[in-house]
Amino acid sequence: MDSKSEDINIKTLALKLGLSPGSVSKALKDSHEISEQTKIKVRKLAYDLNYVPNPYASSLRKRKSKTIAVVLPEVADSFFSLAINGIEAVAQTKGYHVIISLTNELLAKEQEIVRELKSGRVDGIIMSVSRETTEGSHIRELQSKGIPVVFFDRAAEDIETSKVTTNDEESGYMAAKHLIDQGCKKITYLSLSKCLSIMNERFTGFKRALADNGLSFDDTNVAFCSANNKGNFEVVKELLSRGNRPDGLLASVEMLSIIVYNVCRELLLDIPGDIKIIGFSNLSCASVLNPSLSTVTQPAYEMGHAAALLLCKALEKKNVRLHEKIVIPSALNLRDSSR
Amino acid sequence: MDSKSEDINIKTLALKLGLSPGSVSKALKDSHEISEQTKIKVRKLAYDLNYVPNPYASSLRKRKSKTIAVVLPEVADSFFSLAINGIEAVAQTKGYHVIISLTNELLAKEQEIVRELKSGRVDGIIMSVSRETTEGSHIRELQSKGIPVVFFDRAAEDIETSKVTTNDEESGYMAAKHLIDQGCKKITYLSLSKCLSIMNERFTGFKRALADNGLSFDDTNVAFCSANNKGNFEVVKELLSRGNRPDGLLASVEMLSIIVYNVCRELLLDIPGDIKIIGFSNLSCASVLNPSLSTVTQPAYEMGHAAALLLCKALEKKNVRLHEKIVIPSALNLRDSSR
Repeated sequence: MDSKSEDINIKTLALKLGLSPGSVSKALKDSHEISEQTKIKVRKLAYDLNYVPNPYASSLRKRKSKTIAVVLPEVADSFFSLAINGIEAVAQTKGYHVIISLTNELLAKEQEIVRELKSGRVDGIIMSVSRETTEGSHIRELQSKGIPVVFFDRAAEDIETSKVTTNDEESGYMAAKHLIDQGCKKITYLSLSKCLSIMNERFTGFKRALADNGLSFDDTNVAFCSANNKGNFEVVKELLSRGNRPDGLLASVEMLSIIVYNVCRELLLDIPGDIKIIGFSNLSCASVLNPSLSTVTQPAYEMGHAAALLLCKALEKKNVRLHEKIVIPSALNLRDSSR
Repeated sequence: MDSKSEDINIKTLALKLGLSPGSVSKALKDSHEISEQTKIKVRKLAYDLNYVPNPYASSLRKRKSKTIAVVLPEVADSFFSLAINGIEAVAQTKGYHVIISLTNELLAKEQEIVRELKSGRVDGIIMSVSRETTEGSHIRELQSKGIPVVFFDRAAEDIETSKVTTNDEESGYMAAKHLIDQGCKKITYLSLSKCLSIMNERFTGFKRALADNGLSFDDTNVAFCSANNKGNFEVVKELLSRGNRPDGLLASVEMLSIIVYNVCRELLLDIPGDIKIIGFSNLSCASVLNPSLSTVTQPAYEMGHAAALLLCKALEKKNVRLHEKIVIPSALNLRDSSR
């Protein structure tokens, strides 16, 4: 039984990073003297090497639970598993435990989890709401109990608090514009929900790109899929079996891209010859798919990291009001599926 | 704000499944009168439709926390995210909350999480140990506090309790045998840890297949990769750049297969022409990789499901001793990467 962490201290980190121990210490304390880029590097290494701050030196240890809850729809999507790493990197260096609860995209379950958390077992909550969540009265109750909540990616729009998002509308626009530039005339947006703000923002950008480029828009330019992936193969198969099938697809979540690949295989449709596709995805294997998948890659790790920092800031300075909005842009990774 | 769950009751489930309401009720109560296959079907539908049992009818509601903790190395691997679904399916129908904590493959973090859980915030624990965990004294302390622990996939071998595993040794044997049958003469096992029982069992099966088929074994038949994926690209690249590089690879975890694909691309090696590969993986996109990936597919959902059932049984009947061993076999899915 050997613990890798026992020898990791500020000096070890400083040595490996080529920084002074003082700078590392300041970075871990989120000092304004240190650049954001350096702070991210320091925290990442501290996390990878399992650096744990000296509990006696840390005022955080006086807190009752020292626990942060992360409430998410699911973990099968790479976006959420990467975001968790970003959250854990901050929590670990600041001495917080992290517990994760999954809503499985169900509002009823989200309400139940929030009810349980209200009983005070956690100091604060980082949350990405379910696809069914249209308003946040259950979340407001947490705030009224003095438990701070920070949203990342998917926010309840009627709750005033800090939010970390990406540029969803612009990303939807860029992705659709790319398909248009590649010659697509009839593009369909594969959506997951009519409620989720991020889905609608991506959709708004998508529609604006069509309009800006003289393409008409009607009901056939959008298809709704289910969150638990039941029946999605059939929805996509029906869409791609039509006489006037789309020649371009924008998949709003990771799993829908894989379904499109499987449907195309069954229908003997060639990607990108018969149909081009680009998907919102953080799949590490996107580049080795057949064909390689063009993606809108979200800054998942960075978004989790930023959300955790905002929450820790609120926990450390009780009187800080939470209303920061951080937007971290996504990147377009163009590969063979849209060429 | 609409909740999909409000209309879901035993009758709805019975109607959709073509069973009597009595049978559904018995299945949810884990009655011996109902077949295992039917119980799995019932719980799966109950889970998908978000069926929540009437709290007043359930004696479980008398428990103090009604919470199960799931302690895992990570969630980026599809195996664990699928296993969580199996656990949640059981927990939801039995009225338990689930909280997930990640060890990031670090023993120090696992010990910290266990210490926190010992304070009694949960009724029971389902666990898959970190790659650094060689013995379970920290876990034994949980048991001595009366908190039952069930292992799935990765167990601490010195702890007597219920375990749900798959046939790792046999799977390692079958995978290696398949590569040999395809003409491979020099096969390397890509391992993650020298400590983990499942890694060693797969390795034992691998070595036995080599011996049974007259192939010699030395240090070059195994390569150790890191759990946080740091430096693995370089490890695999070095392996595949050697003069006497392997002509077959068995990847012991999902991420290593993707790394092999990326290395082969950089080194301009053809899969399966220059090198054949089969990997332990539950990746939903295995069949649409380039080339499609041969996998040992573990019964992830079923293993999580079985572990949760065992834990619930222990929680419902306090005097039940936990020492059931359930082994659910994996399946070989042969695709183009090993042909």
